Amino acid sequence: MKAAIIGTTGYGGGELIRILENHPYISIHSIHTTRDEKPVSEEYPHLTGIFDKVLTKIETEKIAEEADIVFLATPSKVSGKLVESFFNKGIKVIDLSGDLRLKDASAYKAWYKHEPVGAPILNEAIYGLSEWNREQIMNANLLANPGCYPTAALLGLAPVLTEKLVESNSIIIDAKSGVSGAGRSPSMGTLYAELNENFKIYKVNEHQHIPEIEQQLSLWNGDVVNVTFSTHLIPVTRGIMATIYVHLKEDLDTLRLLDLYKETYDGHPFVRVRKNGVFPSIKEVKGSNYCDIGLHADSRTGRLTIVSVIDNLMKGAAGQAVQNANIMFGLKESSGLEMIPLYP
Amino acid sequence: MKAAIIGTTGYGGGELIRILENHPYISIHSIHTTRDEKPVSEEYPHLTGIFDKVLTKIETEKIAEEADIVFLATPSKVSGKLVESFFNKGIKVIDLSGDLRLKDASAYKAWYKHEPVGAPILNEAIYGLSEWNREQIMNANLLANPGCYPTAALLGLAPVLTEKLVESNSIIIDAKSGVSGAGRSPSMGTLYAELNENFKIYKVNEHQHIPEIEQQLSLWNGDVVNVTFSTHLIPVTRGIMATIYVHLKEDLDTLRLLDLYKETYDGHPFVRVRKNGVFPSIKEVKGSNYCDIGLHADSRTGRLTIVSVIDNLMKGAAGQAVQNANIMFGLKESSGLEMIPLYP
Amino acid sequence: MKAAIIGTTGYGGGELIRILENHPYISIHSIHTTRDEKPVSEEYPHLTGIFDKVLTKIETEKIAEEADIVFLATPSKVSGKLVESFFNKGIKVIDLSGDLRLKDASAYKAWYKHEPVGAPILNEAIYGLSEWNREQIMNANLLANPGCYPTAALLGLAPVLTEKLVESNSIIIDAKSGVSGAGRSPSMGTLYAELNENFKIYKVNEHQHIPEIEQQLSLWNGDVVNVTFSTHLIPVTRGIMATIYVHLKEDLDTLRLLDLYKETYDGHPFVRVRKNGVFPSIKEVKGSNYCDIGLHADSRTGRLTIVSVIDNLMKGAAGQAVQNANIMFGLKESSGLEMIPLYP
Amino acid sequence: MKAAIIGTTGYGGGELIRILENHPYISIHSIHTTRDEKPVSEEYPHLTGIFDKVLTKIETEKIAEEADIVFLATPSKVSGKLVESFFNKGIKVIDLSGDLRLKDASAYKAWYKHEPVGAPILNEAIYGLSEWNREQIMNANLLANPGCYPTAALLGLAPVLTEKLVESNSIIIDAKSGVSGAGRSPSMGTLYAELNENFKIYKVNEHQHIPEIEQQLSLWNGDVVNVTFSTHLIPVTRGIMATIYVHLKEDLDTLRLLDLYKETYDGHPFVRVRKNGVFPSIKEVKGSNYCDIGLHADSRTGRLTIVSVIDNLMKGAAGQAVQNANIMFGLKESSGLEMIPLYP
Repeated sequence: MKAAIIGTTGYGGGELIRILENHPYISIHSIHTTRDEKPVSEEYPHLTGIFDKVLTKIETEKIAEEADIVFLATPSKVSGKLVESFFNKGIKVIDLSGDLRLKDASAYKAWYKHEPVGAPILNEAIYGLSEWNREQIMNANLLANPGCYPTAALLGLAPVLTEKLVESNSIIIDAKSGVSGAGRSPSMGTLYAELNENFKIYKVNEHQHIPEIEQQLSLWNGDVVNVTFSTHLIPVTRGIMATIYVHLKEDLDTLRLLDLYKETYDGHPFVRVRKNGVFPSIKEVKGSNYCDIGLHADSRTGRLTIVSVIDNLMKGAAGQAVQNANIMFGLKESSGLEMIPLYP
Repeated sequence: MKAAIIGTTGYGGGELIRILENHPYISIHSIHTTRDEKPVSEEYPHLTGIFDKVLTKIETEKIAEEADIVFLATPSKVSGKLVESFFNKGIKVIDLSGDLRLKDASAYKAWYKHEPVGAPILNEAIYGLSEWNREQIMNANLLANPGCYPTAALLGLAPVLTEKLVESNSIIIDAKSGVSGAGRSPSMGTLYAELNENFKIYKVNEHQHIPEIEQQLSLWNGDVVNVTFSTHLIPVTRGIMATIYVHLKEDLDTLRLLDLYKETYDGHPFVRVRKNGVFPSIKEVKGSNYCDIGLHADSRTGRLTIVSVIDNLMKGAAGQAVQNANIMFGLKESSGLEMIPLYP
Repeated sequence: MKAAIIGTTGYGGGELIRILENHPYISIHSIHTTRDEKPVSEEYPHLTGIFDKVLTKIETEKIAEEADIVFLATPSKVSGKLVESFFNKGIKVIDLSGDLRLKDASAYKAWYKHEPVGAPILNEAIYGLSEWNREQIMNANLLANPGCYPTAALLGLAPVLTEKLVESNSIIIDAKSGVSGAGRSPSMGTLYAELNENFKIYKVNEHQHIPEIEQQLSLWNGDVVNVTFSTHLIPVTRGIMATIYVHLKEDLDTLRLLDLYKETYDGHPFVRVRKNGVFPSIKEVKGSNYCDIGLHADSRTGRLTIVSVIDNLMKGAAGQAVQNANIMFGLKESSGLEMIPLYP
Repeated sequence: MKAAIIGTTGYGGGELIRILENHPYISIHSIHTTRDEKPVSEEYPHLTGIFDKVLTKIETEKIAEEADIVFLATPSKVSGKLVESFFNKGIKVIDLSGDLRLKDASAYKAWYKHEPVGAPILNEAIYGLSEWNREQIMNANLLANPGCYPTAALLGLAPVLTEKLVESNSIIIDAKSGVSGAGRSPSMGTLYAELNENFKIYKVNEHQHIPEIEQQLSLWNGDVVNVTFSTHLIPVTRGIMATIYVHLKEDLDTLRLLDLYKETYDGHPFVRVRKNGVFPSIKEVKGSNYCDIGLHADSRTGRLTIVSVIDNLMKGAAGQAVQNANIMFGLKESSGLEMIPLYP
């Protein structure tokens, strides 16, 4: 299969190159940018001698003709425009931005502060949470790759939500992310000297991933109306941890819940459930496509603590995008994604 | 005033030296250790030429005779033993460990896994949350300096708890700490290569600061029975952030709550309440004795998010200890503690 | 004394506020910016409630009239212009940029890529290496505060250079700096995700501090023509280490050289010479005005290794500037600079 | 081919697992420890579900019988003993410690402070600098895998040394390493709070890699007697940069020297020479087996600055070990080593 990548100069695009360059079935046909045409290794010297393709202009027709799939690693709003230009051109599209994720068009103005793409596109886009929407993804032409935070939160919540084991109004997600999620554009807030030795909370109750999480949760359990969701910046490059608190409807112990999680994710190569008393840390998934989950039900408070970790650039972006491409092409789901976490 | 410090080789003890060496009214009379007698600057080369006192054995009688106050920067259990030996010897004692904090002796076996000190000592010890127990601290001879996490959590929760504005069973504290809280003893879990680029959750629902927090909250509001409290390790040296979630009893907006907090902490030099829309980060208090607080009430969910940050070695340990010593001696509360946060 | 600070929004300016706000004899009269007029605590929230002065426009006449000294924490070229406008207005000026440091005007085009200030200004400016130019500094009205790298390198080299103990063409300075030296302006190269877990060399043989170092060394020892000088970025916020290699003219052992250094810096409060076998690390001076030095003479190779560390924002910028102001005003050299290194 | 790994609980051993588990021709037959027998994923949770083999005792006979090659990722002295027990048992041995590297047995007492292995073993061991000793490695049964610092330094120096372009007594290597090189054993010096925000020099003129570097350099150029070599700790997990200074015998410009380096390393998949004006940083090789080199010849001083970077756990340890195993088995040199650097 031939892939085109648009937006390789951000970290998500760079990660797509890292994965696809070693993918057994998908090759990188072309890479595109709205900026200068130059070898990508000038932007990313670590690719010197490995991948020296030249970035070229975005010519939609040509891309649609030559490639089988296009990955949009472009920012929200830019992605939306590009999707419109690729729509119905016979090329599969995976969009890593949020522009195709929400079914409720009005939510875009409220949370993204810009206009949504057209309704036909929103309707056709499939939400690519690989472990839960596999059937739909298999037939998708237009795929909304999930956000980094929603991926961690939803994989952590899915088993108890779909089984309706928790009070629907009790969901609190305290999420923490490494800095690479903020992208590669210069800004004072993401300078080294500002974030190093620091820990910040941001967009309190205003993050655009809130409606994405709520949309999926309410599909799983109609009683869920809203969640409390906080985002923090950890001074690391990669990694997300979602620490999730829910009130259990009945007294369930940790072991029983771990069994439920293990059964649920049995056969899914990228979700690993830890054993009783053990919790995953973000470094244990660094550079890999895993989502690791740990649980503890507290009989004192009746609450369940769910810990879910991913690499935000992998399972939270490029890794899940390739996992979805694999599913869309009928390939083995883990093709090209078998890298072992880089530890330490 | 003359101070003796026991346990200067941990980070809390080192911080006491940093503060007291420049204190206008309290001088360091002697420093003590159970380990080798040698100049403290061999343990802490940054003190070379600044503070070269030699560590000496712990001779209780001599210390009690010569000094006006002793700071115990020793681990739990060791502190307890030392307190017993100083009790009723006419010297004021400030213990930075948890050994004097809980009034319920049985809680020590459950949470600390060791025996408590004797009941007379537990009864006499004053809990030194400076901003809230000032009257008692003024007359204290035996002071239990609060834990780092409880300080951040309690200062953040106090105004809404004492005013009974929140559902008493809704309190969730998601706390994150820098690594210096783990002390200076070698262990694999605190090696650089293990914690760098990492973020871990630990002691899930088992942290010994849980009963300390619950004890104080229930004094403020008898309806509070328990809280959910999680602790994480941030890859930074100093700093704690407690992100706290509570359900508001009635619909209150952020501005009104900010007013309450500002009024409550008016006149208290070390609590700074941020304005609407602004949240503190841990680096904004680094090296200082401040506790900074930000709030957001979310009308969608009815929950209030409280963000409270401190430097765990300062307001969370040595800084608050000196603040309490100032109060005990009738000095200006901020004496020796006016250092500005080290930013960046 | 009343000080005005221009350029408080960079890290050097922020550090001047941290020092002067607690200075016993110098007070901050006004702060100025070319950007928006607003409370400095909006730029630097860590100053909330501590120092809330409003940034105002730069009105040269007014500043010269009201203040006794002006600190220019502005970038090279901007500083030069400001110095010209303050020249001969009866106000003392300390410039933290490089614009007054080189006596050879032609060097500015070669190394700074811009025009120098006028010759009368260059001639009058005193190079403020506090430990070595004290006499001149006492009478200075116009002071060129040394660069961060030159401060570390020159204090490390001075004793053996002035004593002519080393081969004059053998000097190699391998310098490493924390990131705060790069300032607070957004750029891709100083983003967290780019520098974290990284270590970079930059401006190889092209750094503008080269002529500054060579100028001072050749004043001490006319045989010195040039040096090899490399600069690297360490992923830390503060700190510089210069590892310096020189060939000894004759076989001298470490102990004898340490004696020379100790004698040389005896009575200088901010230079600390470590004992045999011990070398300073950057964290041992963090937040303080110290320059710590360690030595090892290697009989195998005939080379001396000199290790010199400073906090780049303190002894390498704002700290030395205040030290120089103290000298200029006849105050105790260490006034306002007695902060103990923040360890850990 | 079947490999046994001894000493998987250190970071070098962990990295061997990461590489070999995905190697197309070499499989991990068994893993061994002197400590507890348990699944390696209990030591390294990131391997959960990927590689769950149980660590077993070291039974030399059995290992020699069942496996084709044994990798010793054990500390110096332990390795030596193990090599003796595997010697002449018909199994290939790659030792990652320094115990087989020096031909001069007396150097072990001086630099390693312990006895060397027997002379027959030292004589037979081949020094595995893959790019330079390929012919010998092809026929080796006993391989001394180079040290991390020597690998970076030697690959950087080889072209100008073998061509005799530099003054033989002018070599200064200022090396900086990430912390993983210090291993996983608890010690105060490698605690997070000690190394974070720090930069240290250590073992000044005493590092055991000095004789290893000098031995190889003098093989290339008999005039070289000694070098000055310094080692520093960078607060990162992985990566080494060697900044190397040599005096050129004649005036050669950077471009000409870059040509020499490019020709020298042409056809070697893991050495990448950067173009004029560009220098590699350590993150550009993270997680990969590359050694990246940049150069600058300074006509002012007559010195050449060589910058050489590697990932200390990969090209500096496990990666080069597997590269050598590939050569020993006649496999493609890059088999199993084609991972792209993990950036950012």
